[in-house]
Amino acid sequence: MDRSLGDLGAVSGPARVAGPGEGIGADELGLATRNHGLPLEALRYDVTPPGLHYVLVHYDIPDTDAEDWRLTVGGRVLRPLEVDLAALRDLPVVTRRVTLECAGNGRARLTPRPVSQPWLVEAVSTAEWTGVPLAALLDAAGVAEDAVEAVFTGADHGVERGVEQDYRRSLPLATAADPGRDVLVAYGMNGAPLPPQHGSPLRLVVPGWYGMAHVKWLREITLTATPYTGFQQSTAYRLRQEPGEPGEPVTLIAPRALLAPPGFPDFMTRARVVRPGPVPLTGRAWSGHGPVVRVEVSEDGGAAWTDAEVVPDPAHPWAWAAWRTTWTATPGLRHLAVRATDATGRVQPLAAPWNRGGFANNLVQRVEVLCAPEPEDRGPSGTP
Amino acid sequence: MDRSLGDLGAVSGPARVAGPGEGIGADELGLATRNHGLPLEALRYDVTPPGLHYVLVHYDIPDTDAEDWRLTVGGRVLRPLEVDLAALRDLPVVTRRVTLECAGNGRARLTPRPVSQPWLVEAVSTAEWTGVPLAALLDAAGVAEDAVEAVFTGADHGVERGVEQDYRRSLPLATAADPGRDVLVAYGMNGAPLPPQHGSPLRLVVPGWYGMAHVKWLREITLTATPYTGFQQSTAYRLRQEPGEPGEPVTLIAPRALLAPPGFPDFMTRARVVRPGPVPLTGRAWSGHGPVVRVEVSEDGGAAWTDAEVVPDPAHPWAWAAWRTTWTATPGLRHLAVRATDATGRVQPLAAPWNRGGFANNLVQRVEVLCAPEPEDRGPSGTP
Repeated sequence: MDRSLGDLGAVSGPARVAGPGEGIGADELGLATRNHGLPLEALRYDVTPPGLHYVLVHYDIPDTDAEDWRLTVGGRVLRPLEVDLAALRDLPVVTRRVTLECAGNGRARLTPRPVSQPWLVEAVSTAEWTGVPLAALLDAAGVAEDAVEAVFTGADHGVERGVEQDYRRSLPLATAADPGRDVLVAYGMNGAPLPPQHGSPLRLVVPGWYGMAHVKWLREITLTATPYTGFQQSTAYRLRQEPGEPGEPVTLIAPRALLAPPGFPDFMTRARVVRPGPVPLTGRAWSGHGPVVRVEVSEDGGAAWTDAEVVPDPAHPWAWAAWRTTWTATPGLRHLAVRATDATGRVQPLAAPWNRGGFANNLVQRVEVLCAPEPEDRGPSGTP
Repeated sequence: MDRSLGDLGAVSGPARVAGPGEGIGADELGLATRNHGLPLEALRYDVTPPGLHYVLVHYDIPDTDAEDWRLTVGGRVLRPLEVDLAALRDLPVVTRRVTLECAGNGRARLTPRPVSQPWLVEAVSTAEWTGVPLAALLDAAGVAEDAVEAVFTGADHGVERGVEQDYRRSLPLATAADPGRDVLVAYGMNGAPLPPQHGSPLRLVVPGWYGMAHVKWLREITLTATPYTGFQQSTAYRLRQEPGEPGEPVTLIAPRALLAPPGFPDFMTRARVVRPGPVPLTGRAWSGHGPVVRVEVSEDGGAAWTDAEVVPDPAHPWAWAAWRTTWTATPGLRHLAVRATDATGRVQPLAAPWNRGGFANNLVQRVEVLCAPEPEDRGPSGTP
């Protein structure tokens, strides 16, 4: 059980939102410099190279040893299991291409700003995960009739809002045990063992769900006869307007499209520069609720929208879709925007819906682009 | 030549320092979410896994193709070269373990704060780089008698303070052509091809120098008869008190020690929690000026210091040294600090020397630790 420790108050405070005009503070910066997003130009890769995949670690990356690792499957099961990696590799193996997004993506653009990891828009990536279907593992253990949830415990240990804990989250059994949901106990990423920051040697992958469900450094699965109410389930990752509310749980990823910013950037502002004429615009779009069926692009900051071509890949239903269009750039400062609509009719909002945790915010992306002619006196490329 | 483009002023401003009390702004946050430091617990690895190695990209990660890549060696040489990766692999190959640190590490702790990538302390990592000694490549091209510098051009293109440019830096020929300096044209990192964010397919590695010298996505080496005065050499990466000064160039890495923060963290503050009793303290220390000969630890915020054991590795003179000691923790809020001294007598300062770019700042690291007893009612580990 999570333990609330009064004397941890010296280093661990309650959740809060930033005051009016309050800049990003030291704590938020400390998170931003160690965690990282996808550099947006890396949207060019169908599968994100591991070192470019976004990373959010709640506590420390634990010092794990794949050789000695054991995963237990217990609680409301008929045959409790304890398996090492060799035993897992003897079970059925599947590989799934999955787009992961942090539930807090976009948080830093909210007003007032919830104080936590200050993502702008870049906390999303796609990888090929290889492992054992969770449904097969639960079959091997035998699910007791009264089981309703599966609780997943990671090896990362820390304090959050005064509560000392191992990172722990649950899934409804209907999701965990459904082969069609493709939930995996993964030991491989892009054809190699998991890197330390992505859960070495074992992690959960829950296609379509925000990142908080994909428990890393997975060491224990416990089936329970009552819903799990620990910190990461009932305190964190809820959609609340006021602190006291129970709130709705954060679950499936809301639709979002991102543009790989065109042209080249300014170092400091990250604003873009393009030349006049046709400019290819490409990017990715995804939703945990269903396939993305429409991507629209605006050249005028969101007043008028035109359809881009969406290029879904039926072989990878849990991964982002590519999209593309061509923009005819004319000189001046331009404001591009892009938005996605999924098969359930969900569409990205032009004004961000606010909640105290800054979760599931899928505000449309805006990209500032200066269209400027090629300088006339430009010398031969590369002459120093 | 770099081109100064007046109309780029709409997206690209001059260098500046933050005003009094000015929090981290949107531009700095945009850099912090895409670049990233070493999560400090990863100081545990002698060689940093590639995805945990710090990353600072000035513009975009270019979309390079290793198959078609060509490196030219020209200017004041006797036999201009154009080589592909296969040709480079036919030349002598060496592997060197090298600690890299960003010249701006620690910038965000300065007052007033230079506005740029807001590193706290974590922009350092160590990798095994494999490639061709630059001295061998220059031998093959033949150095003209009047050559004084080697200029290195990367494929990353962008704007900085109004100046459109390819990223480009020079080294004195005395450094570039000296086999004893171990400057490499590297095509491998930790036994694999370079990842995109670390310069795929080719980069320069300049052991002992800050990161700005290690030009990534290297496509051109040009020997010159006069010193190079482009943007990254004469405008950026200078130690200046006032904007108009020529300033001293940033070159070798100043000594620094870092502590792998002990115990476990609070999510938001990153402050640490340990139990009373002996606590192993370990970390790394390095200097570009010479071997680290002393690491000292303070338990009281820098008033009193005791020596830690430094464990140098003579096989890897360009890599950080490990250090270790044991701290007997007693209940309460503690302030650890650590500092390094190198063989030239350089020692880390207790007050940061300030310059307008926030470069080569090697202020001692401070780590807040709460020592708190194990909670008495703590249940069996891992029971949900």
